[in-house]
Amino acid sequence: MANLTAKTVVILGAGFAGISLAKELSRLTKNNWTFSIHVINQENYFVFQPMLPEVVSCAIEPSHILNPIRHLCPNVQVHQATISEIDLETRQVTMVGTDSRRPRQLHYDHLVLSLGLTMNLTAVPGMAEHALPLKTLGDAFHLRNHVLSRLEEADSEPDPELRKTILTFVTIGGGFSGVETMAALNDMVKTVLPFYPRAQATGTRMILVHSRESILNELEPDLAKFAQQKLMERGVECRLRTTVQEITHNDVRLSTGEQLSARTVICTVGNAPHPLMAQLALPQDRGRILVEATMQVKDMPNVWALGDAALVPDVSRGGWCPPTAQYAMRQGRQGARNILAAINGHPLQKFHFKGLGQMAVIGRHCGVAQIGGWKISGLLAWVLWRGVYLMKLPGLPCKVRVAIDWIMELVFPRDITKVELQRTEQLKHAHFQKGEVIIREGEIGDRFYIIESGEVEIVHQEPGQPEQQLALRSTGDSFGELALLKDAPRAATVRCLTPVDVIIFNRKDFLTLVDSYSLFRHHMDAEATAVAEFQKNHTANIHVGVETCTPRAGER
Amino acid sequence: MANLTAKTVVILGAGFAGISLAKELSRLTKNNWTFSIHVINQENYFVFQPMLPEVVSCAIEPSHILNPIRHLCPNVQVHQATISEIDLETRQVTMVGTDSRRPRQLHYDHLVLSLGLTMNLTAVPGMAEHALPLKTLGDAFHLRNHVLSRLEEADSEPDPELRKTILTFVTIGGGFSGVETMAALNDMVKTVLPFYPRAQATGTRMILVHSRESILNELEPDLAKFAQQKLMERGVECRLRTTVQEITHNDVRLSTGEQLSARTVICTVGNAPHPLMAQLALPQDRGRILVEATMQVKDMPNVWALGDAALVPDVSRGGWCPPTAQYAMRQGRQGARNILAAINGHPLQKFHFKGLGQMAVIGRHCGVAQIGGWKISGLLAWVLWRGVYLMKLPGLPCKVRVAIDWIMELVFPRDITKVELQRTEQLKHAHFQKGEVIIREGEIGDRFYIIESGEVEIVHQEPGQPEQQLALRSTGDSFGELALLKDAPRAATVRCLTPVDVIIFNRKDFLTLVDSYSLFRHHMDAEATAVAEFQKNHTANIHVGVETCTPRAGER
Repeated sequence: MANLTAKTVVILGAGFAGISLAKELSRLTKNNWTFSIHVINQENYFVFQPMLPEVVSCAIEPSHILNPIRHLCPNVQVHQATISEIDLETRQVTMVGTDSRRPRQLHYDHLVLSLGLTMNLTAVPGMAEHALPLKTLGDAFHLRNHVLSRLEEADSEPDPELRKTILTFVTIGGGFSGVETMAALNDMVKTVLPFYPRAQATGTRMILVHSRESILNELEPDLAKFAQQKLMERGVECRLRTTVQEITHNDVRLSTGEQLSARTVICTVGNAPHPLMAQLALPQDRGRILVEATMQVKDMPNVWALGDAALVPDVSRGGWCPPTAQYAMRQGRQGARNILAAINGHPLQKFHFKGLGQMAVIGRHCGVAQIGGWKISGLLAWVLWRGVYLMKLPGLPCKVRVAIDWIMELVFPRDITKVELQRTEQLKHAHFQKGEVIIREGEIGDRFYIIESGEVEIVHQEPGQPEQQLALRSTGDSFGELALLKDAPRAATVRCLTPVDVIIFNRKDFLTLVDSYSLFRHHMDAEATAVAEFQKNHTANIHVGVETCTPRAGER
Repeated sequence: MANLTAKTVVILGAGFAGISLAKELSRLTKNNWTFSIHVINQENYFVFQPMLPEVVSCAIEPSHILNPIRHLCPNVQVHQATISEIDLETRQVTMVGTDSRRPRQLHYDHLVLSLGLTMNLTAVPGMAEHALPLKTLGDAFHLRNHVLSRLEEADSEPDPELRKTILTFVTIGGGFSGVETMAALNDMVKTVLPFYPRAQATGTRMILVHSRESILNELEPDLAKFAQQKLMERGVECRLRTTVQEITHNDVRLSTGEQLSARTVICTVGNAPHPLMAQLALPQDRGRILVEATMQVKDMPNVWALGDAALVPDVSRGGWCPPTAQYAMRQGRQGARNILAAINGHPLQKFHFKGLGQMAVIGRHCGVAQIGGWKISGLLAWVLWRGVYLMKLPGLPCKVRVAIDWIMELVFPRDITKVELQRTEQLKHAHFQKGEVIIREGEIGDRFYIIESGEVEIVHQEPGQPEQQLALRSTGDSFGELALLKDAPRAATVRCLTPVDVIIFNRKDFLTLVDSYSLFRHHMDAEATAVAEFQKNHTANIHVGVETCTPRAGER
């Protein structure tokens, strides 16, 4: 029997699709010790995205819509890590955890691609630098604090013109996410404004920019129209058939030529496939993986793709399944059953789902819903939204906490604490003892170092030979650039001759500086040339520090 | 009558002392429109510090111990800003808000210094770089995530020796804060460990390092001894009469010669006065302001100091009042009454308080308390602690939320979501439109710029003269260093000739790089010399962009 052999299923990404597949598979294989299920995700929690706008508007506390993956899927091995490579030939996934110098590898029998979509803000000049996305919990938290900061700033600002700029909030995108965010923000700002007397005297301005004829164009036209009217009644200006051309710290330039002075630009458009997908030799359409209706990748019986990362044929209505949570969750459950069927040699089932309908909240006590043939708007749709999403929110603790938040909101003023958790200092420092090794030969190079004080030696050892001192570096010098510039493992070891204090630049920042700053680039070019000779003779003997992480079936 | 003239009271710092003074003063002067009360604080919230250890241990959610100052003191003008200067001669406070280029000034009739203490971690090599302080909410949040990260890391780490290092937690300081933090952390880690099977197999190690003979030496010896025994029973190792000599990423070296391999070092010692205090020409002892028993600074009838920032004579027992919350709160209330008395020409009252006793939590269901002549230990002291501190926690919403957290803790597993809100990229980018001004002549210089793409012109204008182009800078060049190096206002205006993308370094990071990195320093020296000539001829005409913020008595 096939299920007597140990089987490893590796799930990449813990969104709606990945989590529901992991839960279902773990339920179906409970007490089956030959099964080992792994989830690799960048965070150790699942975030309930539909409630992000309410986090922005301070109605729900950020942590209440999070669920630790280890709580949701108790029989699953969770790896909080970034996936750096997928090798479909050798069936291995390479991931990088906290210690980025030592990537780990995981072998799989079945691979599930459920990494969802990411945001790409590079299409419009200034968008990546100044627009605030709303995709992750970090985004929501940052946006919430950004808005509260603007209220604090406006309340202290003597110049009334500047106060207007500070109190103008622009949202790009009139889809579900954009409309719900703009509406929630509008409510929140109006509610807390009495605590900011000077800001209140100036008043706020909310503008929604949308490229289409009407907002919420996934809904029936009359519902969409109702939503738009409600938004406008509540003071939100809508700019339709309009796109954004350029964003700076102070301004938003629109395709109509209009220039809006604003310090807050929220971006809810610009979905892009996960960058890893493009690197895979799999059938895909603009980064989304093409799969059979069984969610199996064509001609790849052990690779599965689902959720927003995949184009799953919509058996009931033709075309592709829409990228929504209700589809992703059901794809996850069906995917789990199909993986098990594939392992056991049983026939696979096609994914079949008609969709339940769609709902949106248009601010306090108002919503729109389209369920089956029914169309609902106003208070009833809002109550329905809260009921349905509270039910969908996974984990009883989360349900209780969100319900309490909603009750607290009725009784107490909204929380306006602005918790700034970012450190003002951007540079990272570290201290090393005398004799301690800062860089070890063969490691992956992920940092560049500047010596604030102390002295280090750079040494190299050929197998069977005594260690050889190559150079000394002391206060004011730098080291570690070579591996970053060449994208190669460390060619030598750096050891402290005294206690040493350093400034650390991470790989990405270092490469940005080399790219952008001519002073820096010229210096690095010179350094690289000087050591190139040495590297030529020695690279053959350098080993990359990759470890293999064997499945731990027995530990489950 | 004196109280017919408008009076401005400016309170610096919103800790226990500052908040209770602001509340009491606002209560006493309610409906008195000639009074204007200002609070300047770095955060827009008051944080209830006694519960920080419970935030670290995931028992209370971070935001639940925060109270927006605007909610607590509704008739007070709140400025979320950093204080940059106090001028006792002209009675002005200069503060810097979000826009650090335009400091604002506030005139006062009475000044209250209640800035508390800060942490100074520079005494031990490596402490500033690697030890985790526990003073602010940001610290607690960061520490909580750091510990959860170590559990995630250990669970993915194949090397058992490294797992031991990752799972060793060291706390420095055996006072109330150190003991409560170590105990709470020990409880938390033990509770959530079953979710991390590999970490559980290795086990954790908790070590408390204290310089004195016994922990909690403010308590009676038998209570302190009880606390120490409880800690040890629960698996915490105590190193007494021991200090820390050096800390690195991996190691802690103790005064006994012992070297502990640990990735987590929590520091609860190293209190230092607020750096502004040292700059004031006021009678002080090691940074703490010496005041009369009325909390008035000697020979300064309009300057008051209280809380941890001050040395207030202890009238009932001699010596100075201890730096605790119960004293600070009462000093605040007495201070408010005395300020009012001083304004109205009434006699001042001396601060008189005997203290209520002391309490500490030694982990789950265990505490010690010393109240009046009574000594209590165990479960009863723990219940008492929770009751007393819940009562002391200001604001009904906070009380309700913390009470709910405590109930949830009994029913649901502890929240282990690790919310990483720091961006991985340290460098800050910005985009500017063609024609936009990046730097304006006369502003305070707080940033250094590297041009990623585009071109700018550097221009200068003498009064009544046409604008003069001094230089061009384009992709790969940098600008803005001069004002930072000279600590002078901007000597010229920088305007975009094309759309421009820049990398921004803040003042502190720029100066650190100039200090530490010889490549950078040599380049900046050369640049500075080249423009020094120009500056010599023009500084006389440059105006600093300081604005005056007039009291808004009528807006109250």
